Amino acid sequence: MQPDHTSVAIVGGGPAGLLLARLLHRAGVDAVVLESRDRAYVECRQRAGILEQATVDALREAGAGARMDREGITHDGIELRFDRRAHRVDFPSLTGGRRVMVYAQTEVVKDLVALQLADGGPLLFEAEVRAVTGADTERPVVHYRHEGRDHTLSCDYVVGCDGFHGVVKRAVPEAVRSTYERVYPYSWLGVLAEAPPVYDELIYAHSERGFALASMRSPSVSRLYLQVPNGTDPGEWPDARIWDELDARLAVDAEPGWKLERGPITAKSVLPMRSHVTEPMRYGRVLLAGDAAHIVPPTGAKGLNLAAADVVVVARALTARYRDGSTALLDSYSDTCLRRVWRAEHFSYFMTTTLHADPEQSPFDTRLQLSQLEQVSNSRHAAAELAENYTGLPIPD
Amino acid sequence: MQPDHTSVAIVGGGPAGLLLARLLHRAGVDAVVLESRDRAYVECRQRAGILEQATVDALREAGAGARMDREGITHDGIELRFDRRAHRVDFPSLTGGRRVMVYAQTEVVKDLVALQLADGGPLLFEAEVRAVTGADTERPVVHYRHEGRDHTLSCDYVVGCDGFHGVVKRAVPEAVRSTYERVYPYSWLGVLAEAPPVYDELIYAHSERGFALASMRSPSVSRLYLQVPNGTDPGEWPDARIWDELDARLAVDAEPGWKLERGPITAKSVLPMRSHVTEPMRYGRVLLAGDAAHIVPPTGAKGLNLAAADVVVVARALTARYRDGSTALLDSYSDTCLRRVWRAEHFSYFMTTTLHADPEQSPFDTRLQLSQLEQVSNSRHAAAELAENYTGLPIPD
Repeated sequence: MQPDHTSVAIVGGGPAGLLLARLLHRAGVDAVVLESRDRAYVECRQRAGILEQATVDALREAGAGARMDREGITHDGIELRFDRRAHRVDFPSLTGGRRVMVYAQTEVVKDLVALQLADGGPLLFEAEVRAVTGADTERPVVHYRHEGRDHTLSCDYVVGCDGFHGVVKRAVPEAVRSTYERVYPYSWLGVLAEAPPVYDELIYAHSERGFALASMRSPSVSRLYLQVPNGTDPGEWPDARIWDELDARLAVDAEPGWKLERGPITAKSVLPMRSHVTEPMRYGRVLLAGDAAHIVPPTGAKGLNLAAADVVVVARALTARYRDGSTALLDSYSDTCLRRVWRAEHFSYFMTTTLHADPEQSPFDTRLQLSQLEQVSNSRHAAAELAENYTGLPIPD
Repeated sequence: MQPDHTSVAIVGGGPAGLLLARLLHRAGVDAVVLESRDRAYVECRQRAGILEQATVDALREAGAGARMDREGITHDGIELRFDRRAHRVDFPSLTGGRRVMVYAQTEVVKDLVALQLADGGPLLFEAEVRAVTGADTERPVVHYRHEGRDHTLSCDYVVGCDGFHGVVKRAVPEAVRSTYERVYPYSWLGVLAEAPPVYDELIYAHSERGFALASMRSPSVSRLYLQVPNGTDPGEWPDARIWDELDARLAVDAEPGWKLERGPITAKSVLPMRSHVTEPMRYGRVLLAGDAAHIVPPTGAKGLNLAAADVVVVARALTARYRDGSTALLDSYSDTCLRRVWRAEHFSYFMTTTLHADPEQSPFDTRLQLSQLEQVSNSRHAAAELAENYTGLPIPD
């Protein structure tokens, strides 16, 4: 049976929408989640894997921390490789104790789905939202299709957690919406491999051959990325070519002959790189959160964390609204989030453009990249600024 | 009478060449300075005015610190203006006590010329160097024209302090020379005005109208800059337009109606912006120093300071060579300087691209600039990194 009214309609059942649903549930605020894809798709979609402290805290607060705390892997730093050298950035010593946790988005989503289905408001899969109307009224309506029929869900507030291509943002009139965007002249070829990770932290490598990233999903599964030209067909990259190229880009002089341990590659896909911000993040009774409002290139691991921060702010604002009638936090929602969003946009741009080889870049530009990376090795302030941004800024009260 | 032999031939009598001559004189090493322009030209050429601590120390060591210490103005910070707000970066508190000194290059040159003529080796004006030969022999030769006649000066070492268009670097064969370059899509319109400076430190302003910089030469003379398109004719900028534009770009909301105090504009010129590095900085018995080897856009006030640092390293290397025959410092000269040069190239690029409005930039790029400037206001690490670079890195031993 489809609900036809709720307090908060959450469009999108990815990590942002699900986390919001759990936070609202625990605050006693009714909500319905509408997700266009099926459960298996949502639970298997390969995305990020690095959680900032604030994201870890929010998942625990949502009651979804148990398996994460058992299976997640705490990381105290990252390694930068450039100019055939390696330099480790140690987070706790540079930030007064902050760390990150490696726990894949697929696992976050599985945990949140299980919780919501066991104990929560409605979560409808394959519920395709067609439009949101009445954003500037007190009773917006979500129009969606489910099990072959059209439905409407009226509510007090709609939160669009429906990603970059989502429909909720269309409820914000063009005249009040500003968009900011940059598309990068390269993509990532991402692979999952049944091979133990090469190193117990992430390795970000600058190379004249292009960027490489050695990451992990678990002690037996590696997640590896190579910069490739836009429009690359993963079929052009047989497994051996991927491993050879990773070895070449990650090489350092101090470890001659060093190679990654190889294993079967179980998934291969090409990810484009984009920066995007839509402003404002609220219009009337419609709020946008996560990828629906902003996209970052994945180099700084900020996408999932920004989405989590947005919904923490939404949850606080809606909790205050339903608890004591105050709309102050709702009114400031867009400004509160956008300050943090632009910081992360800048950091993601910085990491991306410092580490990738732009096909148009000059030898001068390459030297500037190396000088920047050298600065991170030599200046405590430069290293601390990177560590603070990577481990994430606190979510403002 | 023209000398026909010396230990060190210094080509170029700007601040780098003159400072080197003084340092070598005090170390008892013979040198001859050949300068292509006349004395008045060299002493009046408007250039930089911000001296790092290391430059101040080198001028004192060269015996040229007396008037600088009397008339120079110590600055403890800069003000950044952006988004119609002002934020001061305090150098001593961020760097453990480092400062800069405002003392114009014209005055540095006058002091060094007077010293060299009163007590030093030969300093020939209007001595136009045509070529340097024998760079890879033990007896290089400088070919120059002076008082209507051609001359040669044989020496042990040639130091090219002859600027970006200088001839000494041509003694480094093309096959071993690498150049790195970036030209910026904007220039500075620089003016001298008989008006008291608006503020007791420098103001660097980001504005969608373009960059502006309010600087000073003395308590009664302002040095002001406006970003203008490349190829701008200063004639397009009558005085009133300059003042109006400075007022608009420097405006902040906290001081409505704030305006610069106006006065007669006594000089106007357009300066192009370029980054350039030539590697290596030594070939055989020829060394390049200052603008002969590298150019920075003026936004970080690094040009004169890099030149001073280069010649301090040259002077130490040649002193060691003549005192105890050791060529170790000469052999490492290029590497020693280039590390510091690339740091300054990166900083100058950072200041330039963060503060100027590129005619091609998107609204996204503008937001990133503002986010970077915001970060300097909010993060002590970001502010400290800027302050460390601005006040200058120590010259390595």
